[in-house]
Order: sequence, then structure tokens, then C-alpha cells
Amino acid sequence: MAIGLAQINPVIGNFEYNAKIIAKYIKKATDMNLDIIIFPEFALTGFPLGNIIERHPILAEENLKWLKGLAKITKGTAAVVGFIEPSKAKQGYNSSIAILKNGKIEQIVNDNYSEPIEIKGQKYKIFIDDGIFDCDIKELNSDIIVNCSANSVTFANDINLLQDKAREYKKTIIYVNQAGGNDNFVSEGTSRVINNNGQIIAQAKSFDEDFVSVDLNKENNIIKLTTSAVAKKEFSLDYEDELERTYNIIVQGIKDYFAKCGIKRAVLGLSGGLDSTVCAVLLADALGKENVFGISMPSKLTSDESKSDAKELANNLGIHFAEATIKPIVDTTTDCFSRLFENIEKDWNDRYTKSFTPDNIQARARATYLWGVSNEFPSCIPIATSDKSEAYMGYATINGDMSGGFAPIADVTKTKLFALARWLNKNRPQKNAIPESIILKKPGAELAIDPNTGKTLNAEDALMPYEFLDEIIWRIENKQESYNDLVNATFIYEKKNNISKEQKLEWLDKFYRRMSSALYKWAIMPPAVITGEHSINKAVYSQAITSGKINYKGSDESYIDRVLAD
Amino acid sequence: MAIGLAQINPVIGNFEYNAKIIAKYIKKATDMNLDIIIFPEFALTGFPLGNIIERHPILAEENLKWLKGLAKITKGTAAVVGFIEPSKAKQGYNSSIAILKNGKIEQIVNDNYSEPIEIKGQKYKIFIDDGIFDCDIKELNSDIIVNCSANSVTFANDINLLQDKAREYKKTIIYVNQAGGNDNFVSEGTSRVINNNGQIIAQAKSFDEDFVSVDLNKENNIIKLTTSAVAKKEFSLDYEDELERTYNIIVQGIKDYFAKCGIKRAVLGLSGGLDSTVCAVLLADALGKENVFGISMPSKLTSDESKSDAKELANNLGIHFAEATIKPIVDTTTDCFSRLFENIEKDWNDRYTKSFTPDNIQARARATYLWGVSNEFPSCIPIATSDKSEAYMGYATINGDMSGGFAPIADVTKTKLFALARWLNKNRPQKNAIPESIILKKPGAELAIDPNTGKTLNAEDALMPYEFLDEIIWRIENKQESYNDLVNATFIYEKKNNISKEQKLEWLDKFYRRMSSALYKWAIMPPAVITGEHSINKAVYSQAITSGKINYKGSDESYIDRVLAD
Repeated sequence: MAIGLAQINPVIGNFEYNAKIIAKYIKKATDMNLDIIIFPEFALTGFPLGNIIERHPILAEENLKWLKGLAKITKGTAAVVGFIEPSKAKQGYNSSIAILKNGKIEQIVNDNYSEPIEIKGQKYKIFIDDGIFDCDIKELNSDIIVNCSANSVTFANDINLLQDKAREYKKTIIYVNQAGGNDNFVSEGTSRVINNNGQIIAQAKSFDEDFVSVDLNKENNIIKLTTSAVAKKEFSLDYEDELERTYNIIVQGIKDYFAKCGIKRAVLGLSGGLDSTVCAVLLADALGKENVFGISMPSKLTSDESKSDAKELANNLGIHFAEATIKPIVDTTTDCFSRLFENIEKDWNDRYTKSFTPDNIQARARATYLWGVSNEFPSCIPIATSDKSEAYMGYATINGDMSGGFAPIADVTKTKLFALARWLNKNRPQKNAIPESIILKKPGAELAIDPNTGKTLNAEDALMPYEFLDEIIWRIENKQESYNDLVNATFIYEKKNNISKEQKLEWLDKFYRRMSSALYKWAIMPPAVITGEHSINKAVYSQAITSGKINYKGSDESYIDRVLAD
Repeated sequence: MAIGLAQINPVIGNFEYNAKIIAKYIKKATDMNLDIIIFPEFALTGFPLGNIIERHPILAEENLKWLKGLAKITKGTAAVVGFIEPSKAKQGYNSSIAILKNGKIEQIVNDNYSEPIEIKGQKYKIFIDDGIFDCDIKELNSDIIVNCSANSVTFANDINLLQDKAREYKKTIIYVNQAGGNDNFVSEGTSRVINNNGQIIAQAKSFDEDFVSVDLNKENNIIKLTTSAVAKKEFSLDYEDELERTYNIIVQGIKDYFAKCGIKRAVLGLSGGLDSTVCAVLLADALGKENVFGISMPSKLTSDESKSDAKELANNLGIHFAEATIKPIVDTTTDCFSRLFENIEKDWNDRYTKSFTPDNIQARARATYLWGVSNEFPSCIPIATSDKSEAYMGYATINGDMSGGFAPIADVTKTKLFALARWLNKNRPQKNAIPESIILKKPGAELAIDPNTGKTLNAEDALMPYEFLDEIIWRIENKQESYNDLVNATFIYEKKNNISKEQKLEWLDKFYRRMSSALYKWAIMPPAVITGEHSINKAVYSQAITSGKINYKGSDESYIDRVLAD
């Protein structure tokens, strides 16, 4: 009972690329004289497929041709390969599993699970995706359960249930999952063999391609599952047990997005602030320092400290660095705007006396620079450096810092980013690449002057303390708490600081108000790595922009009766 | 048997707004002494709900409170109202229908259809959504079938099957559908009563809120279904029978996006070209001419004709108009860029000798103006004027013409836009608002000089003839044709023009190549009206950007065998 797990990282719809990798592992398993080699669900097609099979049904046929080609190279070692079968009913295709052996397609499994399949005297029952969780224990008429999957990190907690299942069924479970990033999704990987005591006896890497083999007839060491997702029960500012995982997910996500799109390089603005700093480190680690260009684009509001911090960071990382002032562009644009606005004012006489126009001119001048670099140098895209806390608040400029070809940290909240920065300084081979002053600095976009202090506006003054904001986000995403739940909850920030009830209500109101008017920004965010179970990434969370008038506080019965009686 | 159909246009998640409208029609029906008044599926919540109920389950409770409130105002007239029931299994909710009468919730229907419900001696069987199509005829133990729906134009062809169903079942069908626009989706409306001969005897407006009533005991006139979707069997450049419908869909989509978001005004660039022209007309009709600002933003490449055409169009429409040169911004940006690029070149020495940078600087300068206006004047968003043909080709600038708060024509191909322009000139109350020279002009972005002619680059030279391009798009979207199907098909353009096989293959190759690298632009398109069954709007079509390396031509068996043998 020698078994191989080929945890591959396919490219969606690229059959030649995927089939070559599958062939490589089939040959390896055959050379190793394994009984069976198991690939993930959708191994041949990649996943998620979206609507491409419905629109280009030829691709389902191509996938069958490549499957037949793979069958031909098999010998005595059986290959279990995820592919798709064309179907008119189910969105264009069924997710199926083929057993290839001795030059032929021996059997095809669909409908979520197979009857037991005998290979070299051993019975295997194959489950597709999460069919294993719906199975009646009485139907488990085989010794070994195989589970082929293409789970992303969004479903990581489901994977942890497999050990319980092995104990419950008293069966060996072989779980083979897809690895790698596809746009917003990073697949979990972490394929494994679990013995019938629920112990892991073989395990592949998380997120990246890997191959492991195990002989079930031998004594196998017990392996601890280390990199799995931790489902927090309560919000905490201690992110320590999540940071390595978050780092690995994002680096894999960046690496694969660039590689699969055929892009080598990234350019980003370095403001000397936290967001762009963390992005720069992640990009350097994912793409190589020679492929990252950091550009400091100071305005008259940029402090000397921000400028020197940006430069120091770039030097530490060894990424390329240039400085480019936005002053001429801002001045010219401001001048052009004032002439246009005076004309418009003749017809629309309610011009704002105080607007965000000057702030946004700066953010947009910077994005224009970055897209310019992307247009002028081959194989290079600009990076959107927005974080999740600010996306919730709409505290990001369209065609400005929100704009780019990829958004590495759009699913990471600000307090977690601070923790991640410290973690990076401690755990990367190169220690303390991030200047301490960047981590100590209070976040602020340096786009406007605070009239109260005469200094550049602090983001937390414009919004609310990030510790408070991030707890709202966590409670809504993880516990689906309502406005009233939040009012009644005791926030960590409240425990640490003395704030009035009025202050708390003001922040909660601001949260819902800003979130409601940020929905249109969520809809146009560039592809971004989803780092966990919940996010506002449009690939997994959909909310109509026109739903911005939702009353999250709810109404009481007497109010409803009064309104409807009128 | 006096029956009312209340085809309402709800706002997603805004229970107070929706319940007030439902209450208005309940009171009206009660005053008219109708037996029954029927509302659409999801009448109380609006649709599509996306994930808001999963994330904010409080909204499901709120919907029940408002439903109870509505029940209290009912008297002898039964009200059939779509709402949601909380559910842990089905994505947070079930779509259900309540029958409210005499101050109470009398009955609740879910599971797609009800047992017959008796109201004033008449039996009604209620179907939710498309349950009516799965029904066994033997189970139709009632005289009248009610079908509550929230169908958008994407499913318009399904609605046309209802007349067949009435004939098949020999039953009266009362179909009540949602009306109105919600982000990308416009609901079909066109609620109707079909007699048991399959004839329409009452019909509400398409797309907009409406109320109709009918007495089934009386003789009713037969009404012709006029505004329904036409499913073309073959591609044709004659769009005549679709244009009124397309116009109405887009105008409703714009109107509701603005109204439901609480925005009054739009600002757009007027280039004197077709796209911005058609957008301006649609906006003027949807929002009122006083709420539209057209801005001509000439560069040194802009022809005098383009400038005067833009002005003439604005004058004709009576929308506000201003001119603002982009020259200073372009010059300053170009100058700043050249300094930065020289610095970058020291590290990345493969700078393009010919790039799109100068083209894009212009497009981005224009978008910066428009977002500036939106930042400076209340209740105003900029408009993205990209069309569908150009979106397929990626022939639109990120942070340029692709950028805006809403994209009215992103689901309309170029040849259809030309037809729409002519239709608008003929069919709007104000004839010939669009200057003939705009319609006669060859499309071109006026961003670059064609080195072959010394004139501004013509879009069809950069891409391919739009008549050819639009036929590719139509064949792929409507017939799911493959690369080889397209090679073998005879295009209308081929019939009219003598083109070589090589030329055709070159255009087909260019199509797939450009489409594959345009995927990332599709992902960040602003909300846009979907006008028919197929589109690339991300709300209905999903394809990973990382799937850009798909080989649409397919591979033959011998190639596959050779590749896998290596």
C-alpha cells in the first residue's frame, strides 16, 4: 500500500501546463513503484473555473483529450486525477475524478463519491470535495477513504474536521488538495494522510506545490498539523498565532498571480507609512528584490521622516528605489481644476466650501506615476496598497492608492498589519528590515492638514481608533453581530481606555455610515489575496451598492406600525 | 375575481421604503375592493440580496417585523407579499411568500410552491421564481396559478415561456415580477395575467414600477406582448427590434442607480465620439438635462470637428457644458515622467522604445478632471464611457475612460451603439440631437498619431473592423462557438468585403490574445447595466485573470501524446 499525494498548483484552463505537471508526477510514482498516485479535484482544469466552461464549452472537450493523453502514459501505478465532464445541467460541467491505469481510463467517479475501487487488492472509496461530510457511515464499504479537493483558505476550517472523521469512521483518510493562488483565492494545500486513529502520518506543504508518499504497511511517524487556520472565538489584538500563515498566504498569492499572468515586476509608492511598507516586504519576498521598484513621491505635506523612512526601507530590502516629486503635477492640476470649477460653479452653485479634492489630487498624481511606470517598462504592474480597515471606511482614493494591478493586503486589518510588521522584523532571515519609526508612527495619509493641530491629519482622528474599528469588523464578519450587539459588547479598546457611551455610539454610527458609502469602492478593488474565512473581496462577498441606505439599527414595532398606518 | 398586480421597484435591504410602497398598494387594493393583491418575490427585501443576510442576519429579523406590520393593515383584500425567512442551510435565507389578510399573516409559502390557497371561494396555487417550470401538471389542483418572481433582463426569455405554460396547463397564470434597477441588474417587470388560452389579458410596464388590475369574471381584451426580449438566432447588424428595449433598460438602470444611491448628478467627458455621445443622451433622459455636465477636454490631438461636435451635442441636449484643456496637465506629467523614467532605466534597462504611456497620460488626465468635479460638487459622480466591444479588446484606459461611478453602455457593442445613436435621433421627442457628423465619424480615441497616415489612430485599424469584432463577440456569447467554429463560420463582414483567410485568422488571433489580457480590466469595471442574457459584467460572468494563458484553439491528439511522452 504505497501511496503518493501529488498536491499540484494548476493554472486555470491551461491544460498543457497542468497535464505536463500531472505527467511528471505519474512518471515519478511509476518509477517509485507506488500502488496509486492521487491528484486534487480539478487537477487538470484548475479551480475556480467561474463561467469559462459555459462560455467556452470547447474547453471541456480539451480537458477530455488531455485526460486520455494522460491515461496513455500510465502503467501499473493507478493515477487518480480530477477533471471535468461536460454537463448541460450543472453550470456547464461536473467535477469528476478519473482512475487511470495501464494506459486506459479505468473508471470515472462523479456524484460526490464512488463505489469502492479495487487497486492491487486494496479497496478505496473516493470522495469529491466535501462529499465526505455527508456520507452515511454504513456506506463506507472500503478500508481507505480518498478525498480529492480544491479548497481555498476560505474553507480551511473544514479541513481540520477530517481528523475527527477518521476517528469516527475508523478509516484511513487520504486528503489531496489543490495548492497555489488564483486571483483572489489561495488554495490551502496541506494534503495529508490520516490514520484510522485520526493521526496525521504524512503531510504536504501548505499553499505551495508538493509531493509526499507513504507506505501504509509500514510504521509511520505521527506528524503535528502546524500551519492550520485558527478559528478565534473572541477578538484579540494578539495575532501571533496567525501571522506566519497570513504571510505565507499572501506571498503565495502574489507569487502565483504574477507567475500565472506572466508578469515579473511590481512598482509601488513608498510613503514611509505602514501599508506600503508591508506591501514592499511581501513583494520583495514573493518576486525577488530585483523585481520591485519602490517610489517615494513626496508632496509638500510629506514629512522628512516619511521620506527618509521610505528610503531606508528600500535600502534594507535591496529593492530598487527612486524619488519623484508630485508637486508640479499637483500644482498644474490644481490650477487647471480651479479654472474648470469656476466655470461649473456658474451652473451648479452649490460647490463645497471644503472638499477632498486637494487630498485626492495628490493620491491620483501618485497612481498616475505608477501606471506610467507600468506602461513604460515591460512586465510590470503597480500595486494597490489599501488595507482592509481602510477599505471598510472607504478611506482610500479611487484612481489613487486603491488603484493597481494587485492588492496584496486588502484583506488584512490595520492592527494585524502592525503585528505583521513586527513579525516580519523578527522572523524573516533579514532581521529588522522595517525601520522601527515606521511601526511607531501613527497612520495618516499625509494628504491634508488637521485644522486643530496644524499638523497632517491623523487617520485615527478622521476615522476612529483602529483597535476599535478592527474589533467592529471582526465581530461583524465572524459573529455576525448587529448594531445593538455591538452597542452592548465590551470592546478591548473600552477596557483599555475610558470612553463615554456617546463616543462609542458616535464611532459605531460612523462605521455603518462610512461602510455604506464605501460599497462602490469594494466593487472596483483590484484582485486581492483573501486571507481567511471572511472578507469583503467581491469574489466572495456581494452587496449591492444601491443597498447603501440599509438601516442596520432596526426599527421597533411601534415605529413600524406608525409608519405603515400613515 | 378582482385581482391587483403591484409590480414594485424595491430598494435592497431598505425595509421602511419597501414596506411603505407595499402598504400604499395594499390600501389601494382594499379601497378598490379587490379580492387579492399580488407583489413580486422579495418584495419586502429587494433582490439580489447577495450575502447581506449571511453577514447581517439582523436584517432577516427586521424583514419579519415589517411583514407583521404590513399584515396589521390588511383587511378583506388578501395581500401576497414576497419576503425572506431566516435559514441556516440556504445561504442565510429562504425566499418565501406570505398571504396577509384581516390583520394577520394567514399563510406562508416556501419550497417553491404552495398547496392551493382559498381566497373568496377561489383556489390559487402560488409558485416562487421558476418553480412553475418544474411542476407536475397533475399537481395543479387550482384554477389560478400565481407566479411571484424577481427576474432581471438576464432571464427575460424564460418569461416568454409562461404563455406556453398557460396553454399547456389550461390555467390562468398571474405573473408578478420585480421592476427597477439594482446596480448591474435591471428587473424585467412586465408582470401580466395570461388566460387559460395563453393570451395576455393584463400587462404592466417593462422595467418600471406599475400597478394593474383585472377582473377575471369579466371579458378582457387581449394584449400583445410588445417589449419582450428577442432571442436572435443568427448575428445581424440590424438591431432595430432591440433598440427601444436597450434604451429603456439603460435609462431605468441609470435612474435607479442614482436614485437608490441618493446621487443626483453626473459629469462626463464629451469627446465628440460615439461612446460619450450616447452616454450623454442616456444620462440626460434618465437624470434630467440640468443634472448632467458634459466636459470637452481637448488635447493637441483633438480635431476641431470633435470639439465642435461635443459642444453642439451639449447644446442640443441642453445639458451643461464646459471646456477644459488637458494640455498643461499632460505636459507637466510628461515632463515629470521623463525624469522618473530616466532614473528607473538605470536599474531596469529594457524600457519600451514605443509605449502607450503618452496615450494613457491623456486619458488619465481627463478622468482626473471628472473625479475632481465629483469631489468638488455635491451629489455628482463621473461616468465611465467604455463600450462592450472595447472592453473585450482591453481598448480602454484604467483610471481613464474606464473609470467612473457608473458605466451605462459597458454591455453594448459598438455596432449596436451606432444603431442606437440613429434610433435616438429618430425616436426621442427631440429629433436629431446627435450631430450627424458624430455618427459618420470613424471611432478613434484621438490619443495617438498613426505613423502610416500621420492622422490620429483609427480604432478599427488598431483592432479590427467593429462589424467583424461584434460578430465574434455575439457568436461566443450566444452560440458558445470555439476558435475553430469561428474560423469555419462565414461572417457578415466577409460577405460584404473581400478579406483573405490570413486576414481573418489574424483578427481571430488578435481577438483571443487581446481578450485574454483584458480580463483584469473586466474585474475592475464600475457598476454597469447588463442589457441582455450574456455579458462580461463581473456580476454574472467570472473568469480568473490568471486564466489568461488558455489555448482556445485546442490541441490535437498527436501533439498531446508528444508533449506528455517527453
